[in-house]
Amino acid sequence: MFKINENYLKLPGSYLFSTIGRKVREYKAANPDKDVISLGIGDVTKPLAPSVIKALHDAVDEMGNPDTFKGYAPDLGYEFLRNAIRDNDYKARGVDIDIDEIFISDGAKSDSGNIGDIFSKDNKIAVCDPVYPVYVDTNAMAGRTGDYNLETEKWSNVIYMPCTKETGFAPEIPLENPDIIYLCFPNNPTGATITKDALQEWVDYALKIGACIIYDAAYEAYISEEDVPHSIYECEGAKACAIEIRSFSKNAGFTGTRLGFTVVPKELKKGNVMLRDLWARRHGTKFNGAPYIIQRAGEAVYSKEGKRETREQVAYYMENARIIRESLKEAGYTVYGGVNAPYIWLDTNGASSWEFFDTLLEKANVVGTPGSGFGPSGEGYFRLTAFGTRENTIEALERIKKI
Amino acid sequence: MFKINENYLKLPGSYLFSTIGRKVREYKAANPDKDVISLGIGDVTKPLAPSVIKALHDAVDEMGNPDTFKGYAPDLGYEFLRNAIRDNDYKARGVDIDIDEIFISDGAKSDSGNIGDIFSKDNKIAVCDPVYPVYVDTNAMAGRTGDYNLETEKWSNVIYMPCTKETGFAPEIPLENPDIIYLCFPNNPTGATITKDALQEWVDYALKIGACIIYDAAYEAYISEEDVPHSIYECEGAKACAIEIRSFSKNAGFTGTRLGFTVVPKELKKGNVMLRDLWARRHGTKFNGAPYIIQRAGEAVYSKEGKRETREQVAYYMENARIIRESLKEAGYTVYGGVNAPYIWLDTNGASSWEFFDTLLEKANVVGTPGSGFGPSGEGYFRLTAFGTRENTIEALERIKKI
Repeated sequence: MFKINENYLKLPGSYLFSTIGRKVREYKAANPDKDVISLGIGDVTKPLAPSVIKALHDAVDEMGNPDTFKGYAPDLGYEFLRNAIRDNDYKARGVDIDIDEIFISDGAKSDSGNIGDIFSKDNKIAVCDPVYPVYVDTNAMAGRTGDYNLETEKWSNVIYMPCTKETGFAPEIPLENPDIIYLCFPNNPTGATITKDALQEWVDYALKIGACIIYDAAYEAYISEEDVPHSIYECEGAKACAIEIRSFSKNAGFTGTRLGFTVVPKELKKGNVMLRDLWARRHGTKFNGAPYIIQRAGEAVYSKEGKRETREQVAYYMENARIIRESLKEAGYTVYGGVNAPYIWLDTNGASSWEFFDTLLEKANVVGTPGSGFGPSGEGYFRLTAFGTRENTIEALERIKKI
Repeated sequence: MFKINENYLKLPGSYLFSTIGRKVREYKAANPDKDVISLGIGDVTKPLAPSVIKALHDAVDEMGNPDTFKGYAPDLGYEFLRNAIRDNDYKARGVDIDIDEIFISDGAKSDSGNIGDIFSKDNKIAVCDPVYPVYVDTNAMAGRTGDYNLETEKWSNVIYMPCTKETGFAPEIPLENPDIIYLCFPNNPTGATITKDALQEWVDYALKIGACIIYDAAYEAYISEEDVPHSIYECEGAKACAIEIRSFSKNAGFTGTRLGFTVVPKELKKGNVMLRDLWARRHGTKFNGAPYIIQRAGEAVYSKEGKRETREQVAYYMENARIIRESLKEAGYTVYGGVNAPYIWLDTNGASSWEFFDTLLEKANVVGTPGSGFGPSGEGYFRLTAFGTRENTIEALERIKKI
């Protein structure tokens, strides 16, 4: 008689953004006349860049021609894309990454969930609190997190590293040593960043205690300040202790186009086993590559035109971030983030995060994300994203100011 | 200190097709003048159908326009595609499947690997022998298969159901009751099929013992004979015991385009828990949808023109299958399959499968797949696929005849 993975039953409620989606659908159904603006889920709104569109059309034509048609992709992804990544994301920053250490995927969400496959069940994870829910939820599904306590909103076997105004939204080295440490900078949801020196401390700590860092750099394109590392491999020794996850969703608007990659350096070992080989095995056995045409689209992001166009998109969103930040300040809110990240994290002034969500939805018809959905230390905060259109962003903030 | 998933270390060698790929690369490097023809990996060669190409171009244009741009897809996939699947793959065959039971994915390989996530570790699986390696390898990675015995080429905790000429290439109800049963019809690698009555016996058996059937129907488009079910849900009671996995790779040439889907009926339960809800949770947490443009391409497969064009592709490959089958017979081989499936399974006449692989590569410069790569009962057999071009298929068979 088959048995289910009981760990799934321990998960509280549904995935955060599914819950928000349902609430918004219900509100819209009950209020069909209302014009609801979403600054909630981190989904982009600008169309794909012209050079990406051109690359897609060209690749589609290739797929329609018997001489240029492409079947199964190479296990790790096409070399044209891995070369572009190595050169632009790493070599250009003085980081030496081999293309055999780069694995093309269908996105950072899949990778940050699936990476757990190569670790045993008995690893204790440390996460920032608040945190992108996928890290904790996927570890809960794998049975690593113990039991969920509805009252504390914490799992019994997870090390939470509070990131609140009291800590400057930075995690502190935990009292108990973790086995796996999830770090995301620029941070989702708080928009906080980390300096290279501070990140080096984490690398040194991981090396000292033999921990593996899962570094989510999905928002690196939004870094505007000097001294903020774009890759963890800018830190000395990181190749021996860190896996880096990247995305095309936010730098090039690929949320509905799906492309990402993960770097697992050969230096990262357990005994004589390279984690790179384990991930290669998973990649080759449980995945069959990102579509050829999408990999060509990814390559176009690194072309001269593609870089210029996607930089403009990022600048557009960062102007939204500035508008949100300043409008909220004008309205009397205390706000964080939005300088090196497309997320603005605001203090709800004593309201609970979900109360604030409901108020915003009902009074301003604006959708945001309750901070508590990202972890208990997110309670009392609220996330707005800069990914809306300019028009919607301005309109949403006008409405919020009137509440 | 982090710990790796030691189950990975139990896996013998690398994934079958990675090994073949390496051998072929090495042979080509050493023999750059040789024209190697691959009838090995089940990869298609015909370009995407014109209506699919048109749908892709149209969808790319949508992605370049702010008014029609698409970000994150709905968790289960776009309704336009799930509606087309429900109507064409199920309703048209008298099977009532709800669109909430259909989950769009990036392909059948991912799904057949990832589906294990929703089951606990302590399930005993039964597989056909030979079998598509992904079922066993992914269960090995999850720690379900015990230890691998290099001599018997079997895992200690897997129920193997031999499918050889002695059993008519059909599995027989095993002596020990499994918890999860993997069935693939039309079969990869043997090309065998199952009648509706025979499949009903498996459904009845699964219902009786409380097992879950994972039914891989990736090759259903190749069914040419009556009385061969296209979906397991054509059998009575199957919705309460079976998950069905489908692909666009073989019916529409999407091997490099990536699209598939999995059906998890609401009737399939463990106690009061719907497996559909577990899979929905996994899908929403560890995956972010297939690309919008690819989902539109999938929709086009179900259009009137798309159906006609893809049927022509399938007919083209099945003519290849006929050529392979008859040429091999002329050459004195005993062959199976190739009637309802794009795979021809041949008896190596006493040579080991890998010996036959080497002979074919070196003497005929033709790549096939060693039967033993699919399981111990595949020893002494060899798989050729009908997915080559007509020209290559004819040329390859001419060369094989001359060995």
